[in-house]
Amino acid sequence: MSKIGIIMGSKSDLPVMQDAIDILKQFNIEVEVDIVSAHRTPEKLFDYGKNAHTRGFSVIIAGAGGAAHLPGMIASLSPLPVIGVPVKSTNSIDGWDSILSILQMPGGVPVATVALNGAKNAGILAAQIIGSSDAQVQKTIIAYKEDLKAQVIASSQDLK
Amino acid sequence: MSKIGIIMGSKSDLPVMQDAIDILKQFNIEVEVDIVSAHRTPEKLFDYGKNAHTRGFSVIIAGAGGAAHLPGMIASLSPLPVIGVPVKSTNSIDGWDSILSILQMPGGVPVATVALNGAKNAGILAAQIIGSSDAQVQKTIIAYKEDLKAQVIASSQDLK
Amino acid sequence: MSKIGIIMGSKSDLPVMQDAIDILKQFNIEVEVDIVSAHRTPEKLFDYGKNAHTRGFSVIIAGAGGAAHLPGMIASLSPLPVIGVPVKSTNSIDGWDSILSILQMPGGVPVATVALNGAKNAGILAAQIIGSSDAQVQKTIIAYKEDLKAQVIASSQDLK
Amino acid sequence: MSKIGIIMGSKSDLPVMQDAIDILKQFNIEVEVDIVSAHRTPEKLFDYGKNAHTRGFSVIIAGAGGAAHLPGMIASLSPLPVIGVPVKSTNSIDGWDSILSILQMPGGVPVATVALNGAKNAGILAAQIIGSSDAQVQKTIIAYKEDLKAQVIASSQDLK
Amino acid sequence: MSKIGIIMGSKSDLPVMQDAIDILKQFNIEVEVDIVSAHRTPEKLFDYGKNAHTRGFSVIIAGAGGAAHLPGMIASLSPLPVIGVPVKSTNSIDGWDSILSILQMPGGVPVATVALNGAKNAGILAAQIIGSSDAQVQKTIIAYKEDLKAQVIASSQDLK
Amino acid sequence: MSKIGIIMGSKSDLPVMQDAIDILKQFNIEVEVDIVSAHRTPEKLFDYGKNAHTRGFSVIIAGAGGAAHLPGMIASLSPLPVIGVPVKSTNSIDGWDSILSILQMPGGVPVATVALNGAKNAGILAAQIIGSSDAQVQKTIIAYKEDLKAQVIASSQDLK
Amino acid sequence: MSKIGIIMGSKSDLPVMQDAIDILKQFNIEVEVDIVSAHRTPEKLFDYGKNAHTRGFSVIIAGAGGAAHLPGMIASLSPLPVIGVPVKSTNSIDGWDSILSILQMPGGVPVATVALNGAKNAGILAAQIIGSSDAQVQKTIIAYKEDLKAQVIASSQDLK
Amino acid sequence: MSKIGIIMGSKSDLPVMQDAIDILKQFNIEVEVDIVSAHRTPEKLFDYGKNAHTRGFSVIIAGAGGAAHLPGMIASLSPLPVIGVPVKSTNSIDGWDSILSILQMPGGVPVATVALNGAKNAGILAAQIIGSSDAQVQKTIIAYKEDLKAQVIASSQDLK
Repeated sequence: MSKIGIIMGSKSDLPVMQDAIDILKQFNIEVEVDIVSAHRTPEKLFDYGKNAHTRGFSVIIAGAGGAAHLPGMIASLSPLPVIGVPVKSTNSIDGWDSILSILQMPGGVPVATVALNGAKNAGILAAQIIGSSDAQVQKTIIAYKEDLKAQVIASSQDLK
Repeated sequence: MSKIGIIMGSKSDLPVMQDAIDILKQFNIEVEVDIVSAHRTPEKLFDYGKNAHTRGFSVIIAGAGGAAHLPGMIASLSPLPVIGVPVKSTNSIDGWDSILSILQMPGGVPVATVALNGAKNAGILAAQIIGSSDAQVQKTIIAYKEDLKAQVIASSQDLK
Repeated sequence: MSKIGIIMGSKSDLPVMQDAIDILKQFNIEVEVDIVSAHRTPEKLFDYGKNAHTRGFSVIIAGAGGAAHLPGMIASLSPLPVIGVPVKSTNSIDGWDSILSILQMPGGVPVATVALNGAKNAGILAAQIIGSSDAQVQKTIIAYKEDLKAQVIASSQDLK
Repeated sequence: MSKIGIIMGSKSDLPVMQDAIDILKQFNIEVEVDIVSAHRTPEKLFDYGKNAHTRGFSVIIAGAGGAAHLPGMIASLSPLPVIGVPVKSTNSIDGWDSILSILQMPGGVPVATVALNGAKNAGILAAQIIGSSDAQVQKTIIAYKEDLKAQVIASSQDLK
Repeated sequence: MSKIGIIMGSKSDLPVMQDAIDILKQFNIEVEVDIVSAHRTPEKLFDYGKNAHTRGFSVIIAGAGGAAHLPGMIASLSPLPVIGVPVKSTNSIDGWDSILSILQMPGGVPVATVALNGAKNAGILAAQIIGSSDAQVQKTIIAYKEDLKAQVIASSQDLK
Repeated sequence: MSKIGIIMGSKSDLPVMQDAIDILKQFNIEVEVDIVSAHRTPEKLFDYGKNAHTRGFSVIIAGAGGAAHLPGMIASLSPLPVIGVPVKSTNSIDGWDSILSILQMPGGVPVATVALNGAKNAGILAAQIIGSSDAQVQKTIIAYKEDLKAQVIASSQDLK
Repeated sequence: MSKIGIIMGSKSDLPVMQDAIDILKQFNIEVEVDIVSAHRTPEKLFDYGKNAHTRGFSVIIAGAGGAAHLPGMIASLSPLPVIGVPVKSTNSIDGWDSILSILQMPGGVPVATVALNGAKNAGILAAQIIGSSDAQVQKTIIAYKEDLKAQVIASSQDLK
Repeated sequence: MSKIGIIMGSKSDLPVMQDAIDILKQFNIEVEVDIVSAHRTPEKLFDYGKNAHTRGFSVIIAGAGGAAHLPGMIASLSPLPVIGVPVKSTNSIDGWDSILSILQMPGGVPVATVALNGAKNAGILAAQIIGSSDAQVQKTIIAYKEDLKAQVIASSQDLK
């Protein structure tokens, strides 16, 4: 069965990245979480990126902040789709550095970038990717979207 | 077999979006191209988004510029993974509007955003998504990455 | 008599949007408030936009933050003047995403954009629009502007 | 009958502002065009702003670039709805100064801001404002929107 | 004797503008403080700008935030040197709107712009302007600069 | 009689700075032009800044681009009012670096900053400074402003 | 033996700059700390810059905020490598002014710029510079990098 | 003797990076130039970074554009000082992405960043680093700075 790898550059990114873990657990999709620092553990980065597709992962979610090289370097090393989460870490300039250093990848090496601190959406996107070839997971997504709708309708009723 | 939907807000986006078409054809992945304007053909947007997953598409690539609502609105309507290409159109402010109005989606509705004018990467990402459950396509990606490498090695030799 | 529709993407936008409600009530202009999410309730968005002009609305005020598609999508669907309020929501990058995704609409589909969090001005603008064909409302605006002036003169006296 | 005042800070803004004139003529709405510089003809600015609502104007469209004070100062002086067009003039910093000095008006004095160089949309918005109390003009807007749709459908056919 | 006019768009700007008052009092230069709102008291703006040079002022310091039109409009109306203080008011986007709408004046109508919230420097600049034709005031400036130097030298000693 | 020092960081700044020279000559105010590079001729910078006020200058206009330190360093060394012209040189990032490194001076050391490439306004501001204590020069400024007005009125006639 | 000069524009920069002092002490590299203000003590700046290379310094680390001229002016005066630390001081616009006025030096006069508030990295970079000709110091750097790696590995274990 | 490694992410960066090669040749410092792509040749990146300090390099200059990961990844792998040149490549957003993804490195892994396209300064900085322990090279730098000064003095004479 499909498994999602969730990695982050530092333990301090966990409060943001937890949203990806939570939503995927809610969707009953297996996740494996790890800390991989592009700048402090380059060998681990290499091993992780080189082997992820043979270790049973379908998608990798990578979060990092500042000059955020983790998502792009994993994308350089792996044939899997890589989702990048720009983290607004304390050393970031309002998040602009995190966004641009993940989003603006050169031709040939895409990173699927989500919103600043958008780890929840990274999780949903990973599920949608699995769902694109797994009808059961796609049904879960459809149900999730119906639920979002119901919540807005309810809050609209509250307002009136 | 998997099919990729490529849509754009205006025919003027075609020179940018052609890169997605070309790379997917190179990968022998079927594409269907259309013009769907969120702001000028909202009914078509609705039909497209609502029905794409039952029409055989696995992934949708949507390109738009300025206040670019096409990718996000399709993501609102479809359970499929949606890849957004921010187009630096003539009415765009150096591309910032295109990027932010595609990237910064609210929790619950992700768009997999690629670099400004990064349609080629959108195509590769779509292939990677298919490849995450299709070993043959994943091999194509691996070969493509080997080819990128060989080109750099060759240009390095040229330099010396 | 004229009626203003005030909608917002999420209940969390209400503290900002309340300023529009309050000023229009102060002007004795009828308002109808609702939550319409472009991304979570696209069908409701569609119904709202398609029918607003036949339901007695003269102007629609729409507030949203981040990749804010609500004002532009309503403007796509309705022939009414649409006023957009960029909301500096928690997921916004200092408001830049909210502003650009509302302001930078393509040719053919305008949104009358006001300042970041400028819901009060959205209300005044709606009243000015009604006042452009209703002499009584225009008088209210003129009186309101005289009152603003008097307040500044008074605070100037205080200073001295 | 309703009349739209179109003013600009300098004759060099005319190529941009012509789009507003053209679309309103296409809609058979009367326009009066003038040059009013907030910084070089402050007395004319004053006269224009003070008297526009008694001279038969329903809406004022004001275009300016750089530190663009014309739309906001007219809005300060007139009870009419004022539409501001940020012009990307040669002395502008990529249009940011034009946008921010028109958009970010203080509470009490709104300017309905459209996209950078968006004079066409300013014209359409002015027509929508008239249309909000004039069924004939609203029909023109509805027809215009149908026409936009038809053009996109046609270009979509071309593509296929 | 020379007198400096210090004006601001709103009483809420006073905490920032107080620095200009304080430094000029320290330099024994006469100041007259007032609230003049470009957008809420345009007639007062006009009177102030038209008459300042005949009322004994040598320099005008004007502070405002957001779409800050006060300094530029005074510069439009007066032949005096006008110093603009961009105020980071609550409705400002990190101060960028305040800066750009004061700094980017068109050819013919300068505003001497100082740093964001830089009212103290506005006061010093006003004194330097007076000092350029008044040897006594220039001596005060020279002494002030010596004092700044002494403070840094002292803090350097502290450090060691 | 009063004399204005005009300096620039590089001969390549001359096409921009020429506007300051021209307008001051038109006003019959004496100028002395020189190249002083903060980074390549620091000793000359020092001599210039230290002695300008004793060499008969009333005001210094300094233009520079990129990390533009010339205006601020002269302001550090001289008690005279210093006008800074941010030049959009080839090595500048759209002028943002030039603007911020001139405008954002610390408390105690102001630079009177004008618009990007606004050398003409720097010249006018210098004349206004002289005019604040020289009635003849102030009359020249008043006449110049009348002339600006007449030009706009004429271009308005042309339009009609 | 090699010695690093650490200077800052104001005592208020010390909490940021302390990180450079601490890491260099940890590496057993001698530092000398001082306050040198480009704008308030230009003579001291001159002396410092002119003589640093004859006083036994190998590298200078200079931190400053806002219109930060200290690193660039030291680089203008000294043949030594100068490392600039952009400080996000209270008068800075989110750090952009500090970064651009240090980074964007003209051709001929480099400043080695590190991240916003990145004083720790300035210290490490200074050590790397010494290490490029001193095998003992290079070994310290290699050990430091191993230690960083071990910390990440440990936090990764913690997570699991 | 010392040797400088100059690498770039793509052959298209060579026109910018040539300035580093030229100035180092002018200083008689040995350079070795290569193309190393972080994203297309990650293994070569790894080899290069791991071994540079044992292959006789003293300093590495790395240039890249867009999401520019080359300088930071080399800094992650090597104990040598790494100088990063942000290249304004065609896929870059006015250079902001190149700058931020090189400059904003996390604590522990510095990159000595120079100005956008500032390869010449990267070369000079590399020479200054060698010169910090090599009196002969430092003399070359001092002479170079004298030459810069002479050129400005000459252009100042030209002007007069």
